[in-house]
Amino acid sequence: MFQSFAAQTHPEQGPPRLADLRVQMRAHDVDAFLVPRADAHQGEYVAPRDARLAWLTGFSGSAGFCAVLPDIAGVFVDGRYRVQVRAEVADVFTPVDWPETRLSDWLTEHLPTGATIGFDPWLHTAQEIKTLTEDLQEYVLRPVDNLVDAIWADQPSAPTQPFTVHALEHAGETHDDKRERIAKKLAAQAAIITLPDSIAWLLNIRGTDIERNPVPQAFAILHASGKVDLFAGPGKADDIVEHLGQDVFVHDIAHFLEAVAQLPGPVQIDAKSCPEIVASTLEAAKIATVKRADPCLLPKAIKNLTEIAGAKAAHARDGVAMVKFLAWLDEEAPKGQLTEIDVVKALEGFRIQTNALRDISFETISGAGPNGAIVHYRVNEKTNREVNKGELLLVDSGGQYVDGTTDITRTIIVGEPSAEYRACYTRVLQGMIAISRIRFPKGVGGQHLDVLARAPLWLAGQDYDHGTGHGVGSYLSVHEGPQGISRRSEIALEPGMILSNEPGYYREGAFGIRIENLITVILAPDLPGADARDMLSFDTLTFVPLDRRLIDTGLLTKAERDWIDRYHADTVTLLAPRLDDATRAWLTNACAPL
Amino acid sequence: MFQSFAAQTHPEQGPPRLADLRVQMRAHDVDAFLVPRADAHQGEYVAPRDARLAWLTGFSGSAGFCAVLPDIAGVFVDGRYRVQVRAEVADVFTPVDWPETRLSDWLTEHLPTGATIGFDPWLHTAQEIKTLTEDLQEYVLRPVDNLVDAIWADQPSAPTQPFTVHALEHAGETHDDKRERIAKKLAAQAAIITLPDSIAWLLNIRGTDIERNPVPQAFAILHASGKVDLFAGPGKADDIVEHLGQDVFVHDIAHFLEAVAQLPGPVQIDAKSCPEIVASTLEAAKIATVKRADPCLLPKAIKNLTEIAGAKAAHARDGVAMVKFLAWLDEEAPKGQLTEIDVVKALEGFRIQTNALRDISFETISGAGPNGAIVHYRVNEKTNREVNKGELLLVDSGGQYVDGTTDITRTIIVGEPSAEYRACYTRVLQGMIAISRIRFPKGVGGQHLDVLARAPLWLAGQDYDHGTGHGVGSYLSVHEGPQGISRRSEIALEPGMILSNEPGYYREGAFGIRIENLITVILAPDLPGADARDMLSFDTLTFVPLDRRLIDTGLLTKAERDWIDRYHADTVTLLAPRLDDATRAWLTNACAPL
Repeated sequence: MFQSFAAQTHPEQGPPRLADLRVQMRAHDVDAFLVPRADAHQGEYVAPRDARLAWLTGFSGSAGFCAVLPDIAGVFVDGRYRVQVRAEVADVFTPVDWPETRLSDWLTEHLPTGATIGFDPWLHTAQEIKTLTEDLQEYVLRPVDNLVDAIWADQPSAPTQPFTVHALEHAGETHDDKRERIAKKLAAQAAIITLPDSIAWLLNIRGTDIERNPVPQAFAILHASGKVDLFAGPGKADDIVEHLGQDVFVHDIAHFLEAVAQLPGPVQIDAKSCPEIVASTLEAAKIATVKRADPCLLPKAIKNLTEIAGAKAAHARDGVAMVKFLAWLDEEAPKGQLTEIDVVKALEGFRIQTNALRDISFETISGAGPNGAIVHYRVNEKTNREVNKGELLLVDSGGQYVDGTTDITRTIIVGEPSAEYRACYTRVLQGMIAISRIRFPKGVGGQHLDVLARAPLWLAGQDYDHGTGHGVGSYLSVHEGPQGISRRSEIALEPGMILSNEPGYYREGAFGIRIENLITVILAPDLPGADARDMLSFDTLTFVPLDRRLIDTGLLTKAERDWIDRYHADTVTLLAPRLDDATRAWLTNACAPL
Repeated sequence: MFQSFAAQTHPEQGPPRLADLRVQMRAHDVDAFLVPRADAHQGEYVAPRDARLAWLTGFSGSAGFCAVLPDIAGVFVDGRYRVQVRAEVADVFTPVDWPETRLSDWLTEHLPTGATIGFDPWLHTAQEIKTLTEDLQEYVLRPVDNLVDAIWADQPSAPTQPFTVHALEHAGETHDDKRERIAKKLAAQAAIITLPDSIAWLLNIRGTDIERNPVPQAFAILHASGKVDLFAGPGKADDIVEHLGQDVFVHDIAHFLEAVAQLPGPVQIDAKSCPEIVASTLEAAKIATVKRADPCLLPKAIKNLTEIAGAKAAHARDGVAMVKFLAWLDEEAPKGQLTEIDVVKALEGFRIQTNALRDISFETISGAGPNGAIVHYRVNEKTNREVNKGELLLVDSGGQYVDGTTDITRTIIVGEPSAEYRACYTRVLQGMIAISRIRFPKGVGGQHLDVLARAPLWLAGQDYDHGTGHGVGSYLSVHEGPQGISRRSEIALEPGMILSNEPGYYREGAFGIRIENLITVILAPDLPGADARDMLSFDTLTFVPLDRRLIDTGLLTKAERDWIDRYHADTVTLLAPRLDDATRAWLTNACAPL
């Protein structure tokens, strides 16, 4: 079992830890200290020793930060976590709506001018500190040792598991070829790469340093020659030396900054992910820097044919587990007394039955009734709730397979749905279908398409407070940039990108609905009568039934109804041959035409 | 009659003028000279003396520029003008697709490094020259006198008509109040305002310096005190002195740069509209500058209740003219021999019959058959074409009334439409309806909504190469920023903004379709079951029948069909009382339910 259900955080631990931290702040002569969720690699998940935000405040979300001042401690969280944060932190912490409230504005409001703001320069990006410095010209920003580490007596140590090889049959391109083609496009003599999934992709390696994301915690320097210096913990690269070959040199991670300081300039960094301490080390060494996006980001997002084929295989495999799960749920839920945790355990069990599951790709969200309205709900023994008749159950989950990463959400009714549930579910589904069906010209980004997923809800005066879709890695992070479908996602969509398509609707204290498939960008197939212009479209990767009981066919257009019937027919074609008789019968029934 | 039909440009005049210009270039020791469409005020329309691009090249579009080199002269035009430019310029000019091809890239390709590029510093914005300077570091950019003026023997002189007062009953806010509220938000001691429609709005004045746009050609300096220095041609402000009062000081426009050089800093400029010579004058005088959007832009775009009421009155008045025109067209067109020019004359005649028309708001686009595919087609005696049976006629037109500016496009079938015309028209209409119906949260910009207008076409593999909508002024420019509906329009939509909603579809050499209404942003009305979140929606201003013969009802959803029927019913309610019996009968028939 990958997932655990122990209550992760204990709000009551927050006040004494906060008091200890303030003692440290006074000792280090800072009036404020910033505690981000991020580690030095800016990933979504962090190793236990880096879970400083959760340890201090109790807030267990995957994004946010705390700004500790002498008399107030703000916990900044985005729309996904507004409900959750109030349940997880003690009242010595003040939740702040972010990014609506900017950190600099909040600090200006609560701190006298001239005050000193301390921060750990490994945990903040160069861009963050640059922006803060510009916005807080009447304050002093001072890099200091991590003051949370100073009070965290039993802080875990760094992960030590060795890195592994990501085989060519799954990667589809050798690391020699990748290094060569990325190096050719550098705008400098070398690029510093601090994102673990970029390093994983570039070198075709994986790691187990962080749960859920099979990335290696490391730093790398890619030289214009194509050669790479890899900085990792002692012994971690022992198993991949042969795979890395003669042009990748392994060093102890303790020597990373020394190596940075000795680079011939100019050096390319991604200010949005590079730790401030790397930027300030370059500056102190008078090495010119060129600021560019991490050169692996876009190439990694554009999957090759091997990776797309792997994604399809992984989704078919995961679809079998999901169908078995849904059939089981239909059998068990009406009996009563089934809990959210039972649901998570059963689903993980069906995934494990595939004999291919390396990890779950994130903590399964299993929210019944009002818990479904907590967008990133993670059930634990304290919050665990029975799945009652007449309630919606939202299950958002995924698997890490060596050939692909999956992420799927289905919302299921237990018993009979109300008319309102059906109307809301159908609007969410219409949005999901609108994204699935659209064709669009090259150059269009997720920011332009996002409205299609929302229009059915908007027309009813409803909306959801999260993006419509995120990029997904290939046996890498389930949340991967730069592509996305949201009003903030500017990057043009390109064939090979994998994205989630997951509109939702949430009513706090009542219910939550989300429907999610993964899709991949393709060159749109020919169409009679079309203009002579290249267009793109989406190919669906996820094939798992939608809950037909929740669809109000009266709200659908013919095109939408046809899409659903076709989707269900394709689901049967793909999965039926892989199922036992009973599950196949369930599937056929679940996928009957509307 | 406002519109004229003389062929505006003569391609054969281009080659000798180009040769003369190259003589000047050699005499002034520049290897290239830039000839923009823009005047010093960066408006869409220019006075005759400023029509340098058209005079030199023959290209009569409202945007673009020419880069003259010793052996090549590129005419840079956007998607609207790709067809038109080829008909208007001689082959000594090379059309260039812009902005796909950047000027700096094109110059780098065609000029040896070290070459000198001359430009008139009044006609280029500070931002343009800054970007060019950054992109052309291996070249010399040199401000020079205008070399076109040097060879233009009969160049017209500057307009001399006096400015007029825009009455409070139409403006809705005194210029004292406007100056005070804008001055309060300045980020500097003074702001330099070079956009005539900003000056017109700020001071509640209008002018006749430029056809179609009732703006005053002037410069202004708004001080943090709320006082204004207005720089205008001799005598032009004589009629408005009393209106301007004691806090607006009139100066000769010849003294503008001197006044700029003596300002106490810092000074706020809009680098996107401020002439380079103003920026360089400030720099030479060592006056600090703060770069901000023109402080009048957003307040001007957000119309007050008086302006919205005026817009509605203007649109009802203009709607009467349009309905008379459409009824006339239905009567006359089937008889044959009607030409595009006949159509323009008749429509302008009906507008003049309102006794309120100050000007047309732009040259009427009247394109029959293949001419309809030329997005900004302007008929003249050479291109004039009969409106044949079985062809589509695209008519895009508008009026300047003292209470509002209108802009409307209708596409009409003469005789029987083909199934393809109906399918394409219906898709365009579906896009127009999608924008008209949508509700959306605050913060959404036109870039997010644009896709709604295109999705019905995209699904058929079709698209159009222009934005979906532009801002519209209040008895000001028919194209007004900063609001818009296009993938490039980032500004959040706010209640009071007026926009066009005009998707289209064009097949070069065959036909063109566009349907355009003006709409205004409002707070969305309450809706049962809606979330407790403020949403916005659009209120339609234009009420004129759509051509029911071109609507394929089989393609419509019920909601779309209902929208059309409701729109037509509202049109009858609004306009029927203002029409004679025969026209009323035509309207009622044209607006019958589908």
